[in-house]
Amino acid sequence: MSRYLDDFAVGQVYRSSDRKRVTPDEIKQFAREFDPQPFHTDEAAARGTFFGGLAASGWHTAAMTMRLLVDSEFKAANGLVGAGFDELRWPHPVRPGDELRVETEVIEVRASKSRPEIGFVKFRMRTLNQDDVEVQVGICNLVVPTRVGA
Amino acid sequence: MSRYLDDFAVGQVYRSSDRKRVTPDEIKQFAREFDPQPFHTDEAAARGTFFGGLAASGWHTAAMTMRLLVDSEFKAANGLVGAGFDELRWPHPVRPGDELRVETEVIEVRASKSRPEIGFVKFRMRTLNQDDVEVQVGICNLVVPTRVGA
Repeated sequence: MSRYLDDFAVGQVYRSSDRKRVTPDEIKQFAREFDPQPFHTDEAAARGTFFGGLAASGWHTAAMTMRLLVDSEFKAANGLVGAGFDELRWPHPVRPGDELRVETEVIEVRASKSRPEIGFVKFRMRTLNQDDVEVQVGICNLVVPTRVGA
Repeated sequence: MSRYLDDFAVGQVYRSSDRKRVTPDEIKQFAREFDPQPFHTDEAAARGTFFGGLAASGWHTAAMTMRLLVDSEFKAANGLVGAGFDELRWPHPVRPGDELRVETEVIEVRASKSRPEIGFVKFRMRTLNQDDVEVQVGICNLVVPTRVGA
């Protein structure tokens, strides 16, 4: 579906249709390339660290969250173009075997003052594990086209 | 170097020793797995989009930034454990061939009120391309051990 700015409204909630099961190999593979620290790359070494066991890099969690969003119904006419986050936190580690899903809620919709062809949608994004524990929360701003620019 | 909370001070600046050159294949490979949208996966399809050409996923930029940090001198005794970001933005796209580097500046150091063995270091993190244009900026909070807990 091609959504424009005025198709978004405060209070709308979107849920990812898929769940992403996280394997230990995926955690280690991502970490070897982008975040090679012992608590992300090696089960045995991870035990003695802050995390007390293997945990996914926060950037891996963010990337898996993005994939769940791209595969969901939460899409604007230009795709998902993020201008940035007002806040992004990882309150709980992602562990091997976790199953992740995403819930997003629209909290603000506004037109651009300088560019009539675009606007901004602010939403609260929550990534949850199989126990409904939040593993990532953020407030994100999307750039969304208006029908003026279509 | 094993840095504890009292080794950090406001105004300290760290720079990544490496630069990361971004290839078109890396952009597309990351995007196919985590952010499969045309402006990240296909040069020709990208031309007609918001980005006007192939651009790295913001999460790819974030992941490459993390790698530059992990490989740099900017380390605490427990590694780099991020509690989250107060702000994270991508002001300019990352293009194939860009060379990225990272600058971090400590802007706040504080002890935890409830846990004497840890504290928090807040820093401004800037990822710059070869023209010194900011491609990612963020305000990040690291969890850092105190010598009490060492």
